[in-house]
Amino acid sequence: MIGVGLLGFGTVGGGVYQILKSKKDYIKRKLGEDIVIKKILVTDINKKRKYCVDKFLLTDKFEDIVNDSSIHVVVELIGGEEPSFSYIKAAIKNKKHIVTANKLIMAKHGEEIFRLAEENGVKIYYEGSVGGGIPIIKTLNESLVANKIEKIYGILNGTTNYILTQMTEKKMDFKEALKEAQDLGYAESDPYFDVSGLDSAYKISILSSLSYETFIDVDSLYVEGVEKIELEDIEIADELGYVIKLLAIGKRLEDESLDIRVHPTFVPKNNPISRINGVYNVVQIHGDNVGEIMMYGQGAGEMPTASAVVADIIEVAKNIKYNISNGLINNLQDHRLISIEEVENPFYIRLMVNDKPGVFAKIAKVLGDNNVSIASVIQKHRLTPVVPIFLRTHPVKEKYMNQAADELKNIDDVIEIKNIIRVEEL
Amino acid sequence: MIGVGLLGFGTVGGGVYQILKSKKDYIKRKLGEDIVIKKILVTDINKKRKYCVDKFLLTDKFEDIVNDSSIHVVVELIGGEEPSFSYIKAAIKNKKHIVTANKLIMAKHGEEIFRLAEENGVKIYYEGSVGGGIPIIKTLNESLVANKIEKIYGILNGTTNYILTQMTEKKMDFKEALKEAQDLGYAESDPYFDVSGLDSAYKISILSSLSYETFIDVDSLYVEGVEKIELEDIEIADELGYVIKLLAIGKRLEDESLDIRVHPTFVPKNNPISRINGVYNVVQIHGDNVGEIMMYGQGAGEMPTASAVVADIIEVAKNIKYNISNGLINNLQDHRLISIEEVENPFYIRLMVNDKPGVFAKIAKVLGDNNVSIASVIQKHRLTPVVPIFLRTHPVKEKYMNQAADELKNIDDVIEIKNIIRVEEL
Repeated sequence: MIGVGLLGFGTVGGGVYQILKSKKDYIKRKLGEDIVIKKILVTDINKKRKYCVDKFLLTDKFEDIVNDSSIHVVVELIGGEEPSFSYIKAAIKNKKHIVTANKLIMAKHGEEIFRLAEENGVKIYYEGSVGGGIPIIKTLNESLVANKIEKIYGILNGTTNYILTQMTEKKMDFKEALKEAQDLGYAESDPYFDVSGLDSAYKISILSSLSYETFIDVDSLYVEGVEKIELEDIEIADELGYVIKLLAIGKRLEDESLDIRVHPTFVPKNNPISRINGVYNVVQIHGDNVGEIMMYGQGAGEMPTASAVVADIIEVAKNIKYNISNGLINNLQDHRLISIEEVENPFYIRLMVNDKPGVFAKIAKVLGDNNVSIASVIQKHRLTPVVPIFLRTHPVKEKYMNQAADELKNIDDVIEIKNIIRVEEL
Repeated sequence: MIGVGLLGFGTVGGGVYQILKSKKDYIKRKLGEDIVIKKILVTDINKKRKYCVDKFLLTDKFEDIVNDSSIHVVVELIGGEEPSFSYIKAAIKNKKHIVTANKLIMAKHGEEIFRLAEENGVKIYYEGSVGGGIPIIKTLNESLVANKIEKIYGILNGTTNYILTQMTEKKMDFKEALKEAQDLGYAESDPYFDVSGLDSAYKISILSSLSYETFIDVDSLYVEGVEKIELEDIEIADELGYVIKLLAIGKRLEDESLDIRVHPTFVPKNNPISRINGVYNVVQIHGDNVGEIMMYGQGAGEMPTASAVVADIIEVAKNIKYNISNGLINNLQDHRLISIEEVENPFYIRLMVNDKPGVFAKIAKVLGDNNVSIASVIQKHRLTPVVPIFLRTHPVKEKYMNQAADELKNIDDVIEIKNIIRVEEL
């Protein structure tokens, strides 16, 4: 019998409880062993709950779990940094294996947690932290073990993908689409964590750390959210054969440097990633032997995430049963993380300019002087003195693009640079 | 040290040899153990080979492998039924673990092999048998362990998907597209196994057996190939909002019966499966907790399949290292396999008729008399006495559709039923 202590009994915790209960016989059959929830940590024992649960299972004292020797696995589903991080460390020190869906902790404190786990001979499973029910961690860890991972592209945040999808399909503006996402429960009342790209950054940091056998400092990543995307950008993207997605990118460059970032991106329509809409997540991985594989599914939600957490619990139970040792961080690899300034991409630029002869020549000169070469220009005729110009550049290093943008602002007839968005040909 | 014996040194075998050699250090790091190829069975030791290999590794005697006590894992990559099946059985009896990419053997003889493996305390891994490098077996086996699988839809054969893609995109007819696939090496000179749907049938049988905890008799499945698809069908599908794909379907019905079949299918354009083109494979799985997940990648080829085989070898090595027991076929589930006659689908029908008043009324009457109700009709005007009619029906059981088709043939002015294709709304 494998004993489990649950920390947190919210949506995912409730889902885990529900699955372990309803699939008891099936799990016993597969594993040859019972998995039993011994205790659940909650803040209020008397609160009314969605799932009917025996009161004696509930506790509001972490000590009841961490000191219970019949508990082999601690499943952390509280989320956020504290008290989760302290609880996880304390549990590891008491030789408990850990299953968690906490992306913030795995991204920010992964190295410390893995080292502590190694010292204490326990294992850390975290499939639920990225991509909900999509088995991306296991695929990278086990199925692609014969591959050198070259690139990862992902839509890793369902909230922003829903917002961008509604803007694209229903011609909503950003605020409307955000409001709708909030009404439907896809976005939090404070949407900062999702909309800013931070949630995606935590997730690509976890996937890159695993793929490139290192620990990525998430604070050093370039992260840009979707707040500045306007309908006009989406419409021009469409005209040019692209869809705007909040892409999380993790690339291994030829010299073993890493290029990891999150930002709105022009994605070519012929790449399947461009078709992944609504709250769905997708991860596309390029490995040297397997080529390109893609996985998609619901990136969040009670049951998909609970499905991943239960798979982890069963995996850890198997490890306990067969006494498999850890070996997670032997031989970390050294990689230099390149700065966003060094990244080379084509860019899309939207400018508002005075509709006068000679303005475009000035813009072209500034771009040329800064090594930015123009791939295409769209100028829409309007009956206003100020008109938009849409430019697509050839690939150029970000630092040159930034210099060019600074100089563009100084041209008299350039009223405003509305948006600059990176293009990935994938 | 884990000793490996390779049976077969063709494309996939060469790929496996190459990966194990080039990733030696990496694998040692991950596994904490060396994996060493001890012997390779070939038919001609002196043949010139793509990969430079030490001659002393080669043997033309299976006995050299099956009787070598330093070999723990036998990797069967010969393909086909014999001698592979006999070799696998002999190896199991000598307590060797098995890794294979042989779909024919796993589909036709899976039950016997698993039972023999259980008796002998060894394990069978076969990720490479379905979907090349896509980790579909592991996902079903481990990541979705907390799910009751409800439906599997797959494009599991790259050759036919390439042919249908070329017909759709380049307006080639079937013969031209097949010829091109053969010229590019995507189709064999005898394309029967792929084109007939048999290859897909083996694969869906393997996936269904695993998902529904049973053994499917592949000979009892309904299997239809792509030979009869004409350009005209593809064009009408497009007009109606569908793409024709050779779909492998494995569904669990409400009464726990199984509905498993392979046939050309109208797939709605808004389903991502319809976008998977060329030699790529895709599997879409519906689980009760995870919802819908989809995985796609290169379904065949030297390195993608070798990538899956090596992941299996490492997995089996882990099992050997930690002495994990089998437990593959405890508690098989009973399922009735429904016949194609009982399957209920909408149908697309293409008929050639004499262009006379009253003909359509006769057709409509026959359909109505047989419980087939018409959803839409397209009749293209042509300057010929014989014209095509395209019908789409509401969902109806196959047996009624068959009765209706028999009676349609007896109508004087119906010249020919050109094609009847099932529609899946997915």
